[in-house]
Amino acid sequence: MPYVNIKVTREGTAPGASATTPEQKAALIQGVSDLLFEVMGKPRHMTFVVIDEVELENWGVGGLPTAEFRRRQSGTPG
Amino acid sequence: MPYVNIKVTREGTAPGASATTPEQKAALIQGVSDLLFEVMGKPRHMTFVVIDEVELENWGVGGLPTAEFRRRQSGTPG
Amino acid sequence: MPYVNIKVTREGTAPGASATTPEQKAALIQGVSDLLFEVMGKPRHMTFVVIDEVELENWGVGGLPTAEFRRRQSGTPG
Amino acid sequence: MPYVNIKVTREGTAPGASATTPEQKAALIQGVSDLLFEVMGKPRHMTFVVIDEVELENWGVGGLPTAEFRRRQSGTPG
Amino acid sequence: MPYVNIKVTREGTAPGASATTPEQKAALIQGVSDLLFEVMGKPRHMTFVVIDEVELENWGVGGLPTAEFRRRQSGTPG
Amino acid sequence: MPYVNIKVTREGTAPGASATTPEQKAALIQGVSDLLFEVMGKPRHMTFVVIDEVELENWGVGGLPTAEFRRRQSGTPG
Repeated sequence: MPYVNIKVTREGTAPGASATTPEQKAALIQGVSDLLFEVMGKPRHMTFVVIDEVELENWGVGGLPTAEFRRRQSGTPG
Repeated sequence: MPYVNIKVTREGTAPGASATTPEQKAALIQGVSDLLFEVMGKPRHMTFVVIDEVELENWGVGGLPTAEFRRRQSGTPG
Repeated sequence: MPYVNIKVTREGTAPGASATTPEQKAALIQGVSDLLFEVMGKPRHMTFVVIDEVELENWGVGGLPTAEFRRRQSGTPG
Repeated sequence: MPYVNIKVTREGTAPGASATTPEQKAALIQGVSDLLFEVMGKPRHMTFVVIDEVELENWGVGGLPTAEFRRRQSGTPG
Repeated sequence: MPYVNIKVTREGTAPGASATTPEQKAALIQGVSDLLFEVMGKPRHMTFVVIDEVELENWGVGGLPTAEFRRRQSGTPG
Repeated sequence: MPYVNIKVTREGTAPGASATTPEQKAALIQGVSDLLFEVMGKPRHMTFVVIDEVELENWGVGGLPTAEFRRRQSGTPG
């Protein structure tokens, strides 16, 4: 009876995409459900998967919103 | 001081609706708050309820996105 | 396909209990599942309910841990 | 390796704003990350912060949706 | 920068185990992190995975605590 | 009406402690509640804070349980 919640930033990671694609979501759902079956024998029909896409400005790391964090990480000088 | 999070798929379940209606949300909020008062004596003003509506393609069950899962459950032959 | 998470402080609210009793948990599970069926037609076998009991010192309100918050609310003078 | 999730109602709290502003979000992210460093020594680059804005009708307190709860709290007669 | 939360019931699913084993947890962590890298290119060091084990009496399905739900599903007559 | 959930690994970060101390928890609760008041004007009595301590083996990063991840990061050769 597993419940899995996957949170990712809302942005494109596939060619031409500006958000997670339906195909990527389906792959995550299948992959996680397979994993729980293989590792723990959990039947797939008892596994719920919920994907949340979070706006970049709503996700922080390193004390900064994600976009600003990445800008500084890329280290472009003034 | 309860906190309750209710996640449902974003789709209509009332006549003519394409999402959870404000009336349904109000009924969920009232019902859950009443329940916590009746079962555990929790005062209603200390109970927070947060409802999340999740897009169908973001919710998986049986290793599939919800729409595809339902299509296969309905068992329409080739 | 609803998923409901109920968080309450770990403390007794039934006579002689020092935590939520199994009977109270069963009543919450049944009550929430019934509510989602009645308000939105959600079949009970597709509703997951997860109850979390949170230690009093891990729950804050009013800027204070719960026990301290209650002490000040009860307003016993010095 | 902390993970912090902040949920607030989606509404303006800064002059002229109808939602949490990017500046407020950045301040929350920085403030929480600083707090975890100062209180527990957690390095900022290992702290994730996710902010969720919740529609007013999806947030309940006192057994009512937020807007209705506030209306009654403000106590305007007939 | 994904965050993944996996909730399972606390019970043994490996021979002789009464809870999820450290090896199973490590396999879940690795599997989910690999999946997010393969499907979305997310670097593994930016993926947090948190596993929650939930007591059987705290997990409900079909309007019943899990143990009672399973007992009825197994359908043993009077 | 904010709700804040803080998840940290269960381990000592204060001298002699093997877990988050009550004082640290109180400091997190106060700090987060102050922050939401200062940044967004949220009244402290309407802010709930829930702290979860997560066992090291239940938290993964870099595709590994935390302890193993740290061991490799510290880079001690064979």
